[in-house]
Amino acid sequence: MIFSVQVKVMPLKELLDPQGKAVIGGLQNLGLKKINDVRIGKNISLQIEADSESQAKQIAEEASRKLLANPVMEYFEISFN
Amino acid sequence: MIFSVQVKVMPLKELLDPQGKAVIGGLQNLGLKKINDVRIGKNISLQIEADSESQAKQIAEEASRKLLANPVMEYFEISFN
Repeated sequence: MIFSVQVKVMPLKELLDPQGKAVIGGLQNLGLKKINDVRIGKNISLQIEADSESQAKQIAEEASRKLLANPVMEYFEISFN
Repeated sequence: MIFSVQVKVMPLKELLDPQGKAVIGGLQNLGLKKINDVRIGKNISLQIEADSESQAKQIAEEASRKLLANPVMEYFEISFN
């Protein structure tokens, strides 16, 4: 069975996100002054062949730990859709 | 009121995603051969000051159209959490 898994990789909350700060500046120049904070991460969509949802989740976690996220600067969340 | 809005920006399904293709190669080198397809986009977390959820959504849509997503290559989805 093929499972569609989403991995959200975001900068750790304790860290400054310079890309997000630059985007806030851009949005304010466009007149969108009601946006107070922006943080930018990655969204990775995986198609995983597995027998069960729990196996697919395990594979996605392994991929995230080994390659997709850098734990020094980022955290990840896995979801199905 | 402050609303936390997530904007998912992904490459259009019709387009090749070279970054995703590179990651598939990396995952296969790590022994994760059950992952068939990878697509990589952005996840943007916004803190929006608005009176209602619908107003926050409207602001997020405007930001996505004007700055966050490039409609030639990307589509976006807005969600609350």
